[in-house]
Amino acid sequence: MQLAAFPRRSAEPWHHGRMDPNIPLPVIGVVHTSYAELEATPIQAGLNRAEHGTIEIADRYQEGLDGLAEFDYAWLVTWLHRLAEPGTDPPLRHVPFLLRSQQRTKGIFATRGPKRPNPIGLSLIQILDVAGPAIRFAGVDLVDGTPVIDLKPYVTRFDRPAGEPRCGWFDEVTIRDGVTAEQLAPRRPLG
Amino acid sequence: MQLAAFPRRSAEPWHHGRMDPNIPLPVIGVVHTSYAELEATPIQAGLNRAEHGTIEIADRYQEGLDGLAEFDYAWLVTWLHRLAEPGTDPPLRHVPFLLRSQQRTKGIFATRGPKRPNPIGLSLIQILDVAGPAIRFAGVDLVDGTPVIDLKPYVTRFDRPAGEPRCGWFDEVTIRDGVTAEQLAPRRPLG
Repeated sequence: MQLAAFPRRSAEPWHHGRMDPNIPLPVIGVVHTSYAELEATPIQAGLNRAEHGTIEIADRYQEGLDGLAEFDYAWLVTWLHRLAEPGTDPPLRHVPFLLRSQQRTKGIFATRGPKRPNPIGLSLIQILDVAGPAIRFAGVDLVDGTPVIDLKPYVTRFDRPAGEPRCGWFDEVTIRDGVTAEQLAPRRPLG
Repeated sequence: MQLAAFPRRSAEPWHHGRMDPNIPLPVIGVVHTSYAELEATPIQAGLNRAEHGTIEIADRYQEGLDGLAEFDYAWLVTWLHRLAEPGTDPPLRHVPFLLRSQQRTKGIFATRGPKRPNPIGLSLIQILDVAGPAIRFAGVDLVDGTPVIDLKPYVTRFDRPAGEPRCGWFDEVTIRDGVTAEQLAPRRPLG
């Protein structure tokens, strides 16, 4: 499959290609957390429920929050701006944080790592309250200042697979709550 | 909060704003399904597991699929190109498909509707097999030709909330498998 130009809106099926470079991606808000450094930030919201953060929604989008407070969880879709590289693709195989001690590589689409062709983050946040422009949430895996590009309510009927699905290499690793990238760095031999 | 310019990559926290209009969003593949019309397409992958579709991954991204076949489910992140309106925002309150018969409105961020400030789709697909550039999957909620912007493995530890979370207005509606937007249109009085 080859790459070609992509129109932002089209009634035709899209065939192959790269999106038009003139797509405006509106930022609907910004995440506030206690983290300034990527390597010191917990790797997944679900592993760090004890910590709280805030989303500040831009004035023009606040009306869109009507009804959100009645959900316990939401998908926070973010643009991982610290990792975006305009016009370049990251390596397609890399060592996920959780496999750093083993130095095993996986394809980027079999990992949840942030260095992706499109650095889009997906965090399952627990909604604590929605008050005006601010959403307080539990489950922090983002650095302070991360832009929000979408917010969708968690709906069990849509988002929970039946049974206990296979989760590939994640089924073989031990995952500790609150773990950060720097804690998962490979151990150096002593002495 | 006001809107301002947004650099695609920045080491600084993002404050407020709109993303730079020159962001290239690479399309990593395209979804092939039997649907040509939005209104005739089932509204959620999880409500239409009986039907299969295919994702064709662009040549340059195929290496990134290594390891994906060992997962039962994945998040298919798409750009809902038929609904994107360059430079304009959709209404922030609307009547979700599932509330059409009642004509109740909800904020867009409390719905899973496709007409969003950023028309990003999130489909929980069941992976059937990964063979070369093609991923066969069960759970179709996209029209043929929808561009794929990311693919992430489903990881139970990250993606399943504890217990039975409240799901807002979804807890009050009956959701039938395979339902489409047009089937949910308000009933017209007879005669």
